[in-house]
Amino acid sequence: MNANNEHKAPVLLALDWGTSSLRAFLLGEDGEVLQTRSTPQGLQSLPMPGAAGFEQVFAGIASDWLARWPHLPVVAGGMVGSAQGWKEAPYVRCPADVGSLAAHTVAVASGLGRDIHIAPGVLLDEPGVMPDVIRGEEIQIAGALAQNPALGQRATMVLPGTHSKWVQVENGRIVRFASYMTGELFAVLVKHSILGRLIADAHAPEPSDSQAAFLQGVQAARTSLPGDFAHQIFAARTLGLTRRLAHGQLKDYLSGLLIGHELVSGLAKSSTTLQAQGPLLLIGDAVLCQRYAQAFAALGVPVAATLDNPAPRGLWEVARVLGLLEQPVVEASL
Amino acid sequence: MNANNEHKAPVLLALDWGTSSLRAFLLGEDGEVLQTRSTPQGLQSLPMPGAAGFEQVFAGIASDWLARWPHLPVVAGGMVGSAQGWKEAPYVRCPADVGSLAAHTVAVASGLGRDIHIAPGVLLDEPGVMPDVIRGEEIQIAGALAQNPALGQRATMVLPGTHSKWVQVENGRIVRFASYMTGELFAVLVKHSILGRLIADAHAPEPSDSQAAFLQGVQAARTSLPGDFAHQIFAARTLGLTRRLAHGQLKDYLSGLLIGHELVSGLAKSSTTLQAQGPLLLIGDAVLCQRYAQAFAALGVPVAATLDNPAPRGLWEVARVLGLLEQPVVEASL
Repeated sequence: MNANNEHKAPVLLALDWGTSSLRAFLLGEDGEVLQTRSTPQGLQSLPMPGAAGFEQVFAGIASDWLARWPHLPVVAGGMVGSAQGWKEAPYVRCPADVGSLAAHTVAVASGLGRDIHIAPGVLLDEPGVMPDVIRGEEIQIAGALAQNPALGQRATMVLPGTHSKWVQVENGRIVRFASYMTGELFAVLVKHSILGRLIADAHAPEPSDSQAAFLQGVQAARTSLPGDFAHQIFAARTLGLTRRLAHGQLKDYLSGLLIGHELVSGLAKSSTTLQAQGPLLLIGDAVLCQRYAQAFAALGVPVAATLDNPAPRGLWEVARVLGLLEQPVVEASL
Repeated sequence: MNANNEHKAPVLLALDWGTSSLRAFLLGEDGEVLQTRSTPQGLQSLPMPGAAGFEQVFAGIASDWLARWPHLPVVAGGMVGSAQGWKEAPYVRCPADVGSLAAHTVAVASGLGRDIHIAPGVLLDEPGVMPDVIRGEEIQIAGALAQNPALGQRATMVLPGTHSKWVQVENGRIVRFASYMTGELFAVLVKHSILGRLIADAHAPEPSDSQAAFLQGVQAARTSLPGDFAHQIFAARTLGLTRRLAHGQLKDYLSGLLIGHELVSGLAKSSTTLQAQGPLLLIGDAVLCQRYAQAFAALGVPVAATLDNPAPRGLWEVARVLGLLEQPVVEASL
């Protein structure tokens, strides 16, 4: 958002509504973000269960916008379309693109007078592979491909997070993907395991030590054998006990170890050579992407680019395919 | 304990004092258990911090015994000798046997008039290997070797639990070992992760389904590649979502997956062929050992025997080497 954009008329209200937050965007006629609002009222933090909770949060974030532009179309993506969401938008199957996402949106009427078009997630369910799902990331991929059409031919997109996703794109479509519970594993180990108690006891670490410990964790992951995970996380404790690692470094070591495990596995699954899978892109939170980029560098794998948040553009693409952007949006008369 | 044993005079009071419980044993002149008491007052559940907490719990479990046999020697093993214990008994290094354990006990005076001889844990700290520690399991191994001297030449002992231990014994000594946070990982995932919420939502599983799901988890671990852990646990969720697994089976699948990962890694570390490492033994809780035995069977690996609880005998051996069993134990006069 900038001062110039404030004066443009929006053509779309886009909602990126996940487990832990809701972000709402007013988008202009070229998909540009005019205004952004966010609230921590994700699915886990609704003021009340069920549709009434969604209604209330939606009204809180968007009622003045819809009062001003009462005919603004509304699209949404993310966990808001899950079985625990406002209305379930059942998964579409791989290969999936913005066309199949748009074709399978479901509409839910809101108390503000507008239907909300909720995009589905994507299901990978083929024989011989573990089934997998994404919900929300497919919107970011659609946005990334709209912003960088050259990537569509072939690319590997890594979206780090609570449940990291490795998504393979071919010919503009999501053809396969794999999820990793890396972020959630790290959180539960730090909050609830013996490793967390050691981390809590630590003094503030030196910044330089943190970086070294992170890379030491990545290297440990690099040399791991199948099944080693539960042994290697215990070793984080004994590395501290034997002073090979300062206690203040334990958290970064663990972070490097977990991210390293994800990378070792994800790179192995991304076919025999990464070149064959096209450039590797990171999508997501800048600080987290920076950590992943460091880990990729330590493994000798180049990252072609890091994309910030293509979700609004992805939702705009869904709306475009749905034909929601074809009508002029007028302000309510006062 | 049985009725006959009740009338025998004890020669030793042995304490197996860990993080979550204290077990106290009166032992006879051949190391046989005459009486057993236990309390959940492990290091995590002391009535007050520091030595006073240990004193109070010790008095609660043993004061009448020591009133009757005031000269009974007392030995202890487990986390009671850790830095967070009653008094720290610093680790001895590999290779370790009952002789080196006995040589490095530390004594702490108790308010009941007897010194408590606390046995140390064992540290593995060699170049090129992740450092590792055991504390408590070395006592069980000493007991197992005393009860089965033939095992001393060469054996692999697996002690499943919160932090599972794989211990290699050669010539009566612990030569190396590896820890796995398998039990703790399972607990934090079930209690604190998204997988736990799915498990909590499940209806009661059918017993036959549970067994199949457990073995399915073991097989998934068998085919895992390095770094796959965080992906495979997420797949437990999607197997439910796609109905390849009933929701009630998820917990057993996860259990099989985690135990399977430990076995795949532990067997790989136990040299190239298990035969070269001697028979494989399970030591510990009968129900948990049974699960591990099923997983070993699914991987085609024979388990030579399962031992129940050799800790009292191990403590008796430490006392014997210390020369604590040489004096006659007389009852207090009334």
